[in-house]
Amino acid sequence: MSEFHSKIKTVEWIKTSELDGISRMVDQTLIPYEYKKIDIKTTKQMYDAIKTMIVRGAPAIGISGAHGVALCAIELLKKNEENFVEELKKGIDYLNSSRPTAVNLSWALNEQLKIVEKGGTKEEITHALIENAIKLENEDIEINKKIGDFGAQIVPKGATILTHCNAGALATVGYGTALGVVRSAYANDNTIQVFADETRPRQQGARITTFELVEDGIPVTLITDGMCSYFMKKGMIDVVVVGADRIAANGDTANKIGTYTVAIAAKYHNVPFYIAAPKSTIDMSIKTGDEIPIELRGEEEVTTINGKKICADGVKVINPSFDVTPNELIDGIITECGIFKPQELKNLFMKS
Amino acid sequence: MSEFHSKIKTVEWIKTSELDGISRMVDQTLIPYEYKKIDIKTTKQMYDAIKTMIVRGAPAIGISGAHGVALCAIELLKKNEENFVEELKKGIDYLNSSRPTAVNLSWALNEQLKIVEKGGTKEEITHALIENAIKLENEDIEINKKIGDFGAQIVPKGATILTHCNAGALATVGYGTALGVVRSAYANDNTIQVFADETRPRQQGARITTFELVEDGIPVTLITDGMCSYFMKKGMIDVVVVGADRIAANGDTANKIGTYTVAIAAKYHNVPFYIAAPKSTIDMSIKTGDEIPIELRGEEEVTTINGKKICADGVKVINPSFDVTPNELIDGIITECGIFKPQELKNLFMKS
Repeated sequence: MSEFHSKIKTVEWIKTSELDGISRMVDQTLIPYEYKKIDIKTTKQMYDAIKTMIVRGAPAIGISGAHGVALCAIELLKKNEENFVEELKKGIDYLNSSRPTAVNLSWALNEQLKIVEKGGTKEEITHALIENAIKLENEDIEINKKIGDFGAQIVPKGATILTHCNAGALATVGYGTALGVVRSAYANDNTIQVFADETRPRQQGARITTFELVEDGIPVTLITDGMCSYFMKKGMIDVVVVGADRIAANGDTANKIGTYTVAIAAKYHNVPFYIAAPKSTIDMSIKTGDEIPIELRGEEEVTTINGKKICADGVKVINPSFDVTPNELIDGIITECGIFKPQELKNLFMKS
Repeated sequence: MSEFHSKIKTVEWIKTSELDGISRMVDQTLIPYEYKKIDIKTTKQMYDAIKTMIVRGAPAIGISGAHGVALCAIELLKKNEENFVEELKKGIDYLNSSRPTAVNLSWALNEQLKIVEKGGTKEEITHALIENAIKLENEDIEINKKIGDFGAQIVPKGATILTHCNAGALATVGYGTALGVVRSAYANDNTIQVFADETRPRQQGARITTFELVEDGIPVTLITDGMCSYFMKKGMIDVVVVGADRIAANGDTANKIGTYTVAIAAKYHNVPFYIAAPKSTIDMSIKTGDEIPIELRGEEEVTTINGKKICADGVKVINPSFDVTPNELIDGIITECGIFKPQELKNLFMKS
């Protein structure tokens, strides 16, 4: 296996001095056509990169947010901003407004806010924010490997794993959550394979998941989103593993639109359905999925593919980017601390 | 309302003499970009038109098949074929092999075969096949209007109707089956609206259903296939109505891939799920949906959109063009003879 995943970092801090640097990230809008990295140098550029999905995937967005705060501090330091802390907090709020659903973004921004609130000189705060961004970035890969190793336990020998969207190396700093489970399972048993949902409208499954798995030499079959039930009925899917953008205290899970439909189909066919996500995706401040804000994105994501309109003029569009899978459809949530039933999530926080 | 549907004929026999003619059809691969008709003059051209989905939709394929037999007879007559009946039967078998799932094709071919078997001179048979093709063509529209009027009864006031694929005027000679129900319901109540599934891989929902409904001034919202559950959970879908390609004696129904997933989602949310189809779609010769042949189509339908690849090279693809919705998920089958529970289909044939 070519171990593509071990060679990439989706988002990486490039330190140019103790008080300066840039965030270098894979431009995911170009995958699978081009594998190109771009350098993000300002808070505004980071906001735009998250909003336009140059970087996407809940954990990757979180780390990008942490980088964004470091970039903000560097900008403020360079212009010798008098209201440094106040402006830095505004920058954090600004970054937090880029995308609403993935809680990893506000989690990571909050981790940076704690650094800011510890106080110090502008230089000390800036330095600490850079170091913390790098620390969170490195931890992300370690967390994903733990998720992968726990998750591999629920993958039967020779299994076919269905996944939706991309919760892979490119949705994180590296290795992946749902695809981390696939990678760890494949390392033990190279007879497993993946079915990847295309994941309309933005086709992260077709574009990014197939790219990652082909690069790693893991067999992958691309299916359209409506096909999942057909293959489940034929007994060709052994387990579903997907990522998450926000998990409520009761285990209700927001993930890429279409996940809920797959979960209903899995329940109907008695196919086990798992979420793979770091603890930072769990939002214990909200009781149920009803409280998760669902981002509505532009119509053109639905009406246009590769720049070409696919429907008649005059059609209406509603484009929710996420849906919520209720806990009753989830067999387990695979975290870096182990696998939990949705209703057991509280234990995860009592332990820590 | 502009009554687009009343102006079109998807497939139309153009009589050039009592013993000659052509089949003129809308090229549906061009919709919604271009509305263009092409003339089919030979059996081979008809086979290709059906196979490449220039004409698609179970009832439209059926009528096209009937036209194809008339074209075959004309060809054989023109070259003064000695083994006229034998060659005509070969032509029927050839046309029948173009697509396997929609039973309307073999039904219509069988209607023409009955004409052949009545016997007569080459001229008499050819003339009778042309007249029968025209008769079946005209009956199709009348049947669809009856389906529409029966079906309108199950559409609540102000309802939002979800449909999958295109079972409209362009899937039939005119008016449509599932969209016939929509048209009849809209004629009574212009507060109804439609949600149209995109229907990957070939996007008949995005391309054709939105085109038809926009032309007729019926409000239509385009959604991706994975979104149906999201909108059902929000209470925004009142009823699902789809077409059919083959219905087994027990009511199990083959329809465009993705239908089964919608039906499972509808059951989970207690949204009524109806099939709209002419009696000719019911295949009493098979007991259950397990016996329905499912067409597997080319990989490029999944991997490529508008000529551009959407996934990595090296990915595997399985592309079943249809799936089977079991009778337990179907609230009723709307036919030209009334609405039947799946288990009551036998009554429909006892009555006739």
